[in-house]
Amino acid sequence: MRLKRFISVADVAAPTELVEEVIQLKKNKFQFNQLGLEKTIALLFFNPSLRTRLSSQLAAKLLSMYDMVLDVNHGWPLEFGLGAIMDKDRSEHVQEAAAVISQYCDLLGIRSFPSLTSQKADYSEPVLNAFETYGSKPIINLESATRHPLQGLTDMVTIAEYQNTTRPKIVLTWAPHPKALPQSVANSFTAWCLAMGHDLTITHPEGYALDPQITQGANIEYDPAKAYEGADFVYAKNWSSFEQYGQIISQDQRWLVESTKWAVTNDANFMHCLPVRRNVVVADAILDSSSSLVIQQANNRTFAAATVMKCILQHMNT
Amino acid sequence: MRLKRFISVADVAAPTELVEEVIQLKKNKFQFNQLGLEKTIALLFFNPSLRTRLSSQLAAKLLSMYDMVLDVNHGWPLEFGLGAIMDKDRSEHVQEAAAVISQYCDLLGIRSFPSLTSQKADYSEPVLNAFETYGSKPIINLESATRHPLQGLTDMVTIAEYQNTTRPKIVLTWAPHPKALPQSVANSFTAWCLAMGHDLTITHPEGYALDPQITQGANIEYDPAKAYEGADFVYAKNWSSFEQYGQIISQDQRWLVESTKWAVTNDANFMHCLPVRRNVVVADAILDSSSSLVIQQANNRTFAAATVMKCILQHMNT
Amino acid sequence: MRLKRFISVADVAAPTELVEEVIQLKKNKFQFNQLGLEKTIALLFFNPSLRTRLSSQLAAKLLSMYDMVLDVNHGWPLEFGLGAIMDKDRSEHVQEAAAVISQYCDLLGIRSFPSLTSQKADYSEPVLNAFETYGSKPIINLESATRHPLQGLTDMVTIAEYQNTTRPKIVLTWAPHPKALPQSVANSFTAWCLAMGHDLTITHPEGYALDPQITQGANIEYDPAKAYEGADFVYAKNWSSFEQYGQIISQDQRWLVESTKWAVTNDANFMHCLPVRRNVVVADAILDSSSSLVIQQANNRTFAAATVMKCILQHMNT
Repeated sequence: MRLKRFISVADVAAPTELVEEVIQLKKNKFQFNQLGLEKTIALLFFNPSLRTRLSSQLAAKLLSMYDMVLDVNHGWPLEFGLGAIMDKDRSEHVQEAAAVISQYCDLLGIRSFPSLTSQKADYSEPVLNAFETYGSKPIINLESATRHPLQGLTDMVTIAEYQNTTRPKIVLTWAPHPKALPQSVANSFTAWCLAMGHDLTITHPEGYALDPQITQGANIEYDPAKAYEGADFVYAKNWSSFEQYGQIISQDQRWLVESTKWAVTNDANFMHCLPVRRNVVVADAILDSSSSLVIQQANNRTFAAATVMKCILQHMNT
Repeated sequence: MRLKRFISVADVAAPTELVEEVIQLKKNKFQFNQLGLEKTIALLFFNPSLRTRLSSQLAAKLLSMYDMVLDVNHGWPLEFGLGAIMDKDRSEHVQEAAAVISQYCDLLGIRSFPSLTSQKADYSEPVLNAFETYGSKPIINLESATRHPLQGLTDMVTIAEYQNTTRPKIVLTWAPHPKALPQSVANSFTAWCLAMGHDLTITHPEGYALDPQITQGANIEYDPAKAYEGADFVYAKNWSSFEQYGQIISQDQRWLVESTKWAVTNDANFMHCLPVRRNVVVADAILDSSSSLVIQQANNRTFAAATVMKCILQHMNT
Repeated sequence: MRLKRFISVADVAAPTELVEEVIQLKKNKFQFNQLGLEKTIALLFFNPSLRTRLSSQLAAKLLSMYDMVLDVNHGWPLEFGLGAIMDKDRSEHVQEAAAVISQYCDLLGIRSFPSLTSQKADYSEPVLNAFETYGSKPIINLESATRHPLQGLTDMVTIAEYQNTTRPKIVLTWAPHPKALPQSVANSFTAWCLAMGHDLTITHPEGYALDPQITQGANIEYDPAKAYEGADFVYAKNWSSFEQYGQIISQDQRWLVESTKWAVTNDANFMHCLPVRRNVVVADAILDSSSSLVIQQANNRTFAAATVMKCILQHMNT
């Protein structure tokens, strides 16, 4: 499949096919090792990263593509305001930064988290959009203000590998967390499940509804016990409120993922994007059990990233 | 051309030839991709970098040279004083650091900004000189206390690409800025222009004269309006005072680069090394116009760096 | 020689043979440049590094192995406690981090310094052991809480290169230092000397005895003047107290390494692992003399690391 860019699932004409391509690449991970010769990917991190950074670097290497990692905030803060009079602490405008960095690479991966102070600002994806507007190279979203499509793709691959019914019941459960977190992973998991035609139930306390434009088509269930009934996959993730934007409005322990909930599931697999806070989001007994797929999910990040890079390189070659 | 090192334009026997080599390399950027095999460049940054770091990494890659980037200040501060009793916070002397790092690479790129507290100290280039004295490998200046020769070379290439008269009028204009900045870029632009035999006019407020040893041969004009007359290229850059060393002694808005000044020019091209503060150094209307060459300049950094590395590798092979 | 891992000298069946392999690799440093193709090493730094980082990167490159450097503390702090309720500032458990990172590489290098607050905790090597327990790839110790075996191997190579008697007298001398330092280098130097069958004398003030399990077989001498008598090699290093764990209990200047001590030696070579504090640990007159081998030692780090990586790759291929 050819990809022009990878900002969200909306950039993927056939998500099911892309999932299959990841599975095929994983079977022989060096099969496209000529595709990236003489190509360079710049990986820009406005925020910390472990899995995304290492798996993206390794993915580039599988294609023989050169990678350059830049921790943007170890340099200088960028200005994003149009028409700004730049007499404060920001010494470079994204207009120049995006145009310049684009010239030093063939692909551009960007991680930039939300402010969590303005729903409107975050959901306009200011950083990614600025790099797309002022830059000139295909962008791969390494987790933006409101989306994490590489994680979404990875999760679909993992479900495809472990599902043993045609249409498994998938549950996305909110879980408690001490810090206010983005909605990105939950948004992308939802969007990818629905794009794949999966049977998705989302369970969360009142006030934690995700963007209704994204969840349309999913079942919403406020009682976690009911949500878990017959589940084949339980995906846990905390997110801060979308309505009371960026706020923590509940720490309700009924959403903690622990063993007693498993009785009503269909011997469900447990999933999480990591990093995960043990015994806050999920109990050790689940995470350390054979039901847990979190390590396998993380492994699939490499092949998801490599496949996305491959599809963009193939698009560039046409 | 063979280069022993690249500390300043003084290391370049024939600057015009080197500019031509950059232009030739740019036409087929992988033509020297065998030259750096089994070679390594260490890129040491004592200060932040975006363009220089990425373009130097990419330049190394064009030659198939392995690059190692080290943010020196994420480790420990180096001691530079001879005979120092090192019982404070500095745990390593540059005598050892330079000798050791030299052994781990074939070329050594170094960025180290000035203190701006002592003219004499900064103009003695303590960091670069220490690495040259105690190290054993050819050094590429990635912007030192008083010079930025990769930028100077890049600028000469850009002028060569865009000049449409045999001897264009080039204006270097000081511009206002909220912070005290080094004189490096202005020094190197001046030195390269003069070494190339260009017609250079420098305009700045009283008290902002650059080192007279560097500007000898350039026209100095305290009235920016007069300086702009008939200009083919206007290069803007802030610098702090050389005489009242490192001080900001003016924010004179007459030196802001904006559209009304363009009427008396010969449809001048605008240049700046970036990062640039919009609407402080230069107005959006100029920077966003077709007169602006700043993005093209930044692109040429890659080919300037690759050519310099190539010339040093060729010297090492003889 | 095949190596399963490289945590300490105890992992090396025949230290003398390994030293010889380093010397052979150094003679033709690219002789194993096919061995690391399609292999990746992740280099995790919980603490700063200059020599270890650059020499390990270069070593990987000599084998054509891809390297990924991660400064762990630029991301998020890891939780190490079993059963921890992770509701504070630590967002990822080493159980996941180790398992995940292992999947992104073939070899795993780790640097993690001691706390110096608990002898028992540090000597249990919590970080390395956690990565070994929860990870799945061979580990190379890049200096852990209590050991620095790459330095130990390097030092044995340097001694082998410069010894001119069959059984040279080797002296490890404690030296003053303003900060509390780990015992790692002293431990590994001792352990490697004894494993090689060397004649080792350790000299230090009262209260600075190293772990007796490690020093068994070495001569202990509290009078530095006596220790230096007839020495062929004098290796200086500060360490904090093992008994009064992590404390500075002496700054005794009798242990400063300086020229007057050299008269009673057998024209001894001076060694130190670097970084070294000039005129605190050792006087300039020694460090700048032809007796000093510190730069050559640092150079051997590359070949020691490359040989260790080679031996592990050879083990993986069997």
